[in-house]
Amino acid sequence: MEQWTKSESRIVRIEQTLARRQPGLVVVLENVHDPHNIGAILRSCDAVGVMRVMMLYTIEEPPKIGVTSASGAMKWVEFNRFRSVAACFDELHSEGFQILATKIEPKAASLYSYDLAKPTALVFGNEHRGISDEAASAADGLIYIPMMGMVESVNVSVAAAISLFEASRQRATKGMYDVPQLSPERLRLLADDWIKK
Amino acid sequence: MEQWTKSESRIVRIEQTLARRQPGLVVVLENVHDPHNIGAILRSCDAVGVMRVMMLYTIEEPPKIGVTSASGAMKWVEFNRFRSVAACFDELHSEGFQILATKIEPKAASLYSYDLAKPTALVFGNEHRGISDEAASAADGLIYIPMMGMVESVNVSVAAAISLFEASRQRATKGMYDVPQLSPERLRLLADDWIKK
Repeated sequence: MEQWTKSESRIVRIEQTLARRQPGLVVVLENVHDPHNIGAILRSCDAVGVMRVMMLYTIEEPPKIGVTSASGAMKWVEFNRFRSVAACFDELHSEGFQILATKIEPKAASLYSYDLAKPTALVFGNEHRGISDEAASAADGLIYIPMMGMVESVNVSVAAAISLFEASRQRATKGMYDVPQLSPERLRLLADDWIKK
Repeated sequence: MEQWTKSESRIVRIEQTLARRQPGLVVVLENVHDPHNIGAILRSCDAVGVMRVMMLYTIEEPPKIGVTSASGAMKWVEFNRFRSVAACFDELHSEGFQILATKIEPKAASLYSYDLAKPTALVFGNEHRGISDEAASAADGLIYIPMMGMVESVNVSVAAAISLFEASRQRATKGMYDVPQLSPERLRLLADDWIKK
């Protein structure tokens, strides 16, 4: 009985989480190399309802993340692997996503100036090199996070959290967590899949 | 000449940063023990204009943070040490701060429901225990960061970044980075001090 109650509440939790998933918010990790950063980003993804992370590794090999603090969040996020910017961005564009890449440079606009409730892919770059020139020029927009301090940078996992939770704030304002964004068919298929995890 | 130009631009940078500092936004770290978390939090503090961090260590010893990635940000933030919640919160209350503590519990309200442009102290707790009961009950409000995923937590440095950048977003909307929040006297004293760093 105890066991039954526990698994019942797990099913309810899974259904509630799926009902809040945001298929219209995607993350692209371009050569991000530190597994702990990826782990923290995946936790933020799960927290705001991102269900799909594009692993775009053109230089670094995709790191093993199963051993980090991400292992909890990893289960609830789907991964797509890409070896070229073109393949990744073409797929996103064909699905109607705006692609926004985080980069500090004059052409970039403030995070808060973008409508992140639209189908949006947020691209985060390598810890040392940042976003590649190819990704920056193929993106639909460049984002910077306004900073007013002496030290003009934050860790990539912090930048991702700030961006993703701003997207979440905007989406919550529009009621996008109150109505399922997935079709009833997809909700049912995913629920069957998640219950087995 | 080269040298002169460089130090001139440094002075301009210092003056610009000080003109954006937010004396009305303070961070309290209650027994946060991981130096890397503290380092990341200090970078977020510097980035949004926090100039004062209260180190409230009632159980853990304040960790040494000089060796972490914080070393850049540390220089630009002032530290006050406290050994009791009462001493720390009394000082903040006497200066007119609302004290908001991050804690996931039924009485907490969403981060986005608070006016963070008011004089505000944000309290972040220990990585394992969270905020102490004493701090939670003495705070003026409890904050939670809305999360919609299967994993209901983020790292304390990520929670701090989300909260601090939301405060920054609200303050930017009110033009609080466009007009110096420090008196001309304090700006001058701090500029003299910072130029020597």
